[in-house]
Amino acid sequence: MAATEFSQEQLDEIYAFAVDLGRRAGQLLLESVEKRLDGGSQAIEEKDSAVDIVTQTDEDVEAFIKASIQDRYPSHKFIGEETYAKGQSREYLIDEQPTWCIDPLDGTVNFTHIFPMFCVSIGFIVNHRPVIGVIYAPFQDQLFSSCINRGAWLNEKRRLPLIHKPSIPPMPPTAPGKCILSCEWGKDRRDIPDGNMYRKIESFLNLAAETGSRGGKGGMVHGVRSLGSATLDLAYTAMGSFDIWWEGGCWEWDVAAGIAILLEAGGLVTTANPPEDPDTAPIEDVKLGSRLYLGIRPAGPSDTETGRQSQERTVREVWKRVRQLDFARPGA
Amino acid sequence: MAATEFSQEQLDEIYAFAVDLGRRAGQLLLESVEKRLDGGSQAIEEKDSAVDIVTQTDEDVEAFIKASIQDRYPSHKFIGEETYAKGQSREYLIDEQPTWCIDPLDGTVNFTHIFPMFCVSIGFIVNHRPVIGVIYAPFQDQLFSSCINRGAWLNEKRRLPLIHKPSIPPMPPTAPGKCILSCEWGKDRRDIPDGNMYRKIESFLNLAAETGSRGGKGGMVHGVRSLGSATLDLAYTAMGSFDIWWEGGCWEWDVAAGIAILLEAGGLVTTANPPEDPDTAPIEDVKLGSRLYLGIRPAGPSDTETGRQSQERTVREVWKRVRQLDFARPGA
Repeated sequence: MAATEFSQEQLDEIYAFAVDLGRRAGQLLLESVEKRLDGGSQAIEEKDSAVDIVTQTDEDVEAFIKASIQDRYPSHKFIGEETYAKGQSREYLIDEQPTWCIDPLDGTVNFTHIFPMFCVSIGFIVNHRPVIGVIYAPFQDQLFSSCINRGAWLNEKRRLPLIHKPSIPPMPPTAPGKCILSCEWGKDRRDIPDGNMYRKIESFLNLAAETGSRGGKGGMVHGVRSLGSATLDLAYTAMGSFDIWWEGGCWEWDVAAGIAILLEAGGLVTTANPPEDPDTAPIEDVKLGSRLYLGIRPAGPSDTETGRQSQERTVREVWKRVRQLDFARPGA
Repeated sequence: MAATEFSQEQLDEIYAFAVDLGRRAGQLLLESVEKRLDGGSQAIEEKDSAVDIVTQTDEDVEAFIKASIQDRYPSHKFIGEETYAKGQSREYLIDEQPTWCIDPLDGTVNFTHIFPMFCVSIGFIVNHRPVIGVIYAPFQDQLFSSCINRGAWLNEKRRLPLIHKPSIPPMPPTAPGKCILSCEWGKDRRDIPDGNMYRKIESFLNLAAETGSRGGKGGMVHGVRSLGSATLDLAYTAMGSFDIWWEGGCWEWDVAAGIAILLEAGGLVTTANPPEDPDTAPIEDVKLGSRLYLGIRPAGPSDTETGRQSQERTVREVWKRVRQLDFARPGA
């Protein structure tokens, strides 16, 4: 178990540090937005494009986070989106060492358009298991955080998932019916017959269409949501707002913090790609670097099932309706 | 012009009333959420389909808004989602009379799942033209408002669109490329060949696929977003966060306030359904009850175009990539 290398006291201290770091990094993102809005002495010169500003903010915030972590925990490994993306390798680099896996700015397109669904994402991983997660969306001042054994929280005061009294509801008996599906169109828009884009859309359609249609695959989800931020998709799944998050193509820094929070809230995360026999295949913990994720919200028991059973039933029903995606990579 | 029946002073007074009413109604929505978090039970009954849930809150908040308006402006007409939906008619009932068109709770599915994208929507219409709009999303405390000739605002302090210094950017030269597309899957999930669901998805795909693919229709939008609230889609288009909002199937109470705000911010709203010749057809103001909407964000001039020209160019490029939807109704 991940936490065995650290005492709870040590983890609590790291958690407090991560929450503070997330808030400060988010504040930098917000200041960058406000610079774009307010003009005056901080006005952007016209020669600077919005894209340059984002790149600069992205790099500045990552440098700030990295320096803060290396100052406080010099022995820990650090993987950030910006430093990683500049290298040549696409290998999965996380091993059993304590590792910080961070995205200084998730939802970059949203950030450039000042759509509030952007955030900083800070995950702390031990033995491949994200044990601490901090996600801060500064424009709407929503902080999602968790530490193993300490629960998951919204703004450090409301326990996640939000619907927890008198008890967390089980997944609906008709799931994916009555569920909110969270999914993203992503960046792979190549017009390749049976390629990732078409497989994604076919999967969305199966989950959305009226019950039993499309050769029995129609899932009649309650709603389909796309926010443009895998990190916030996970945060809202931990909150209980989204029931199912199905995604391929994002990276470990997009999901490390969100997986920590979703797991601590009581959710389940496994692979997006359906196995050969979705009815009986084992439901394994997700591989962090797999780029293929299926998250299910926290669920409580019903008269006939444990919460976990209702989640696993939902995983299998999703698997029956989705296509395999191709996001293979070395090392994962 | 709509405002001619009322003096600006009268409209300003109605605007102040509407803003206050929106805040108070939103507070009721928030209190209802907090009751659910704290253990209260919420009666949820099924309406038309599994997707169409109405809550007691919906009815209570509409009754509160209606009573407030009838007390203050007894001569004005009132159309609310809940009272309308209980009648048998699906006719378009708005005429040239001063009319309040309100949705006590837009984003009902989000509300039931406690996903923050729900809001109250209050529009005031004169001569078929929405002249005042108030949208309040209480969970994230975002108030969007406008009055004709008074500008559009976020939280009564930031002018919309948000990116306005040194000037509002024109629509991108490659639009729909580099645009964020806002769209919704909606409630019509019937598996009918070439039906509304498939026409919507084909349109989304055309707009999303790499430039020039799909027989030249590929639009390579920067991102595809679905929030589950037509009202908030419009609000974020007015903010400049979304560049293009393309939607069929929602109703006048979903859009009255949002259209007021988007128009006052400098946006354009016309029909979603492409005409026979998208290159030359006139771009007419949207019909409020048409259930077919195409909104374009506020845009400033470039060296070669006025803002309006860049918006109209975008409308035509969208029309070339989307299918006609069937949401005909009597009276509209």
